[in-house]
Amino acid sequence: MQPEPLYMQQALDLAARAVGLSEPNPRVGCVIVSADGRQVLGAGHTQRAGEAHAEVMALRDAAARGLSVEGATAWVTLEPCSHHGRTGPCCDALIAARIGKVVAAVADPNPQVAGQGLARLRAAGIEVATGPLARESRELNIGFFSRMVRGTPWLRMKVAASLDGKTALENGVSQWITSEAARADGHAWRARAGAVLTGIGTVLEDDPRLDVRHEDTPRQPFVVIVDSRLETPPSARILMDGRPTLVYAATPDGARQAALERRGATVIQLPGPGGKVDLAAMLRDLGQRGVNELHVEAGHKLNGSLLREGLVDELLVYLAPKLVGLGQGMANVGPLTELAQATALDFLSCERVGPDLRLLARVRGRDPF
Amino acid sequence: MQPEPLYMQQALDLAARAVGLSEPNPRVGCVIVSADGRQVLGAGHTQRAGEAHAEVMALRDAAARGLSVEGATAWVTLEPCSHHGRTGPCCDALIAARIGKVVAAVADPNPQVAGQGLARLRAAGIEVATGPLARESRELNIGFFSRMVRGTPWLRMKVAASLDGKTALENGVSQWITSEAARADGHAWRARAGAVLTGIGTVLEDDPRLDVRHEDTPRQPFVVIVDSRLETPPSARILMDGRPTLVYAATPDGARQAALERRGATVIQLPGPGGKVDLAAMLRDLGQRGVNELHVEAGHKLNGSLLREGLVDELLVYLAPKLVGLGQGMANVGPLTELAQATALDFLSCERVGPDLRLLARVRGRDPF
Repeated sequence: MQPEPLYMQQALDLAARAVGLSEPNPRVGCVIVSADGRQVLGAGHTQRAGEAHAEVMALRDAAARGLSVEGATAWVTLEPCSHHGRTGPCCDALIAARIGKVVAAVADPNPQVAGQGLARLRAAGIEVATGPLARESRELNIGFFSRMVRGTPWLRMKVAASLDGKTALENGVSQWITSEAARADGHAWRARAGAVLTGIGTVLEDDPRLDVRHEDTPRQPFVVIVDSRLETPPSARILMDGRPTLVYAATPDGARQAALERRGATVIQLPGPGGKVDLAAMLRDLGQRGVNELHVEAGHKLNGSLLREGLVDELLVYLAPKLVGLGQGMANVGPLTELAQATALDFLSCERVGPDLRLLARVRGRDPF
Repeated sequence: MQPEPLYMQQALDLAARAVGLSEPNPRVGCVIVSADGRQVLGAGHTQRAGEAHAEVMALRDAAARGLSVEGATAWVTLEPCSHHGRTGPCCDALIAARIGKVVAAVADPNPQVAGQGLARLRAAGIEVATGPLARESRELNIGFFSRMVRGTPWLRMKVAASLDGKTALENGVSQWITSEAARADGHAWRARAGAVLTGIGTVLEDDPRLDVRHEDTPRQPFVVIVDSRLETPPSARILMDGRPTLVYAATPDGARQAALERRGATVIQLPGPGGKVDLAAMLRDLGQRGVNELHVEAGHKLNGSLLREGLVDELLVYLAPKLVGLGQGMANVGPLTELAQATALDFLSCERVGPDLRLLARVRGRDPF
């Protein structure tokens, strides 16, 4: 028998296994424990979109072991769903299985459904509680929360730089400022995102694939290219087969659009001021397409545009132990006239990755929503 | 009774209390333990220059407690001195006290004296050993080791920057990029240095005092100004009374020199190429003046010159959680044409200081000497 909060931690650990798997669904874990608190009867986490949610997986697990869950307690990291999506509502499954009590870490962030799942459970006579590990569950699903509350993805900007903040030499050379260990770590962050975004400058200069290679993954994230004038070459490596590819543009060009579409890309015209893509509208569109976490790997120009428009939520910065001096910076913003105008962040962590450091910093006031 | 290596740790902890106190002498601790290893008879650390060394302090401590040290073991973090400086040699004091055994963490780094202290102890019939915590003792005295082995101080360059590596806005505004906590921490690093160095650009732009204020200190470090054309205003705040102030110049100017000397500064002409101060010669001169650790707080121009000439050993970087964009960088070097030309470092640590991060990075290959 464990102290009860440990069951929620166990559910959270299961939820973390859905990272990179369940998009666009949230990462949820469920542990069903006997009424006396002594035995785990079943456990599971969210599967791929369209497949079973955590609660159903846990119920199936108990059934497969021939165990009754009648009167048992379900520890689940997010309020069970009450709506019919591609799968039946989890509430109904829990009610049908005669669960006695449901403890949810946090309520559903969608304001249109929040609390309805818990209300339906209560109406069926099930005891309901919320709270333990709410912050951790929310953090694990920060992209899902962002999309539900704001309608846009959680935008995480990845930067690889020297200690003095340079992402490339003046002549454009940038491969490789950081170590192989840092690049592999970066792939793990790509893998957890719903989409990886870059700009036409990076496509033309580096011809990157921006896929997940250094990491086992059940799916490749979408690829998103900000390409105002549709200059992405149809031969670009980023247009590899088998993953959704979105090209946002601001200038219609039928021939170029057709060429990209032949390569499998979806071209979306979202013109904004100055012949540029309307970046805020693009984020709303990506939210509608189910992108929870948007992983940005772009150059200093697009990084600067995203920052200037206040669209960046978090920075994932790898710092290499070297000094470059003159060169390209992280983001083309400013010049400022006062320090108070600088984008204010909070450091969340500083970790060593091989010879490099990985810093995670969050734009101040961006969180919680 | 402690396991014996703990006595050396105890001696090292004592040695650390000499930081900021003993310059230009090394930071040494000594613990004298009874022959059966059960009792600490006396302990001490290096005092101010001209006052007692660690071994003598420990012997006095035992005597003050009325304890005999005959046959006892002295744990000392550096080989006892055998030469007559301003104080008598520690070896003689240990021999006279009939110490039975001396364990030294590390030999004296001065190639002209290394081993002579241990040899003299052995010749007097004292058992001698070396080794435990050698690395730690050496690290604590990295400036002393640098001066003894290379003849020049250990140069630690302090930088306060935004996450994107900017030390000032384009208009020069730099106060304050980092937090009060980081500035106070920086004062502790000033306090441990033999001298704080800056350039005429910083003197003219910021008029800093560059003293130790946020930290109790028994002494103020020397101040060093790199001022090729003797442009330091006699009214500059850095020319405060009561601490040695060195101004290195490259252009004789009798009137300006006399004005600075009236303010208590020592002006040293060390012309190098291009009408600039010969920085390498300056470091040799500072070594001869007994500076172990040289703490540099300068602008990107002088930082760049020191880096280009390969004179920097370590970087102490405070990163504030903000993005500035366009602005002044850490060091005006480059532009490089290949990444392999970048100054290679190794990160030693990453710590949180208030809202900021403090990174310590060492120039690769610079250590051990």
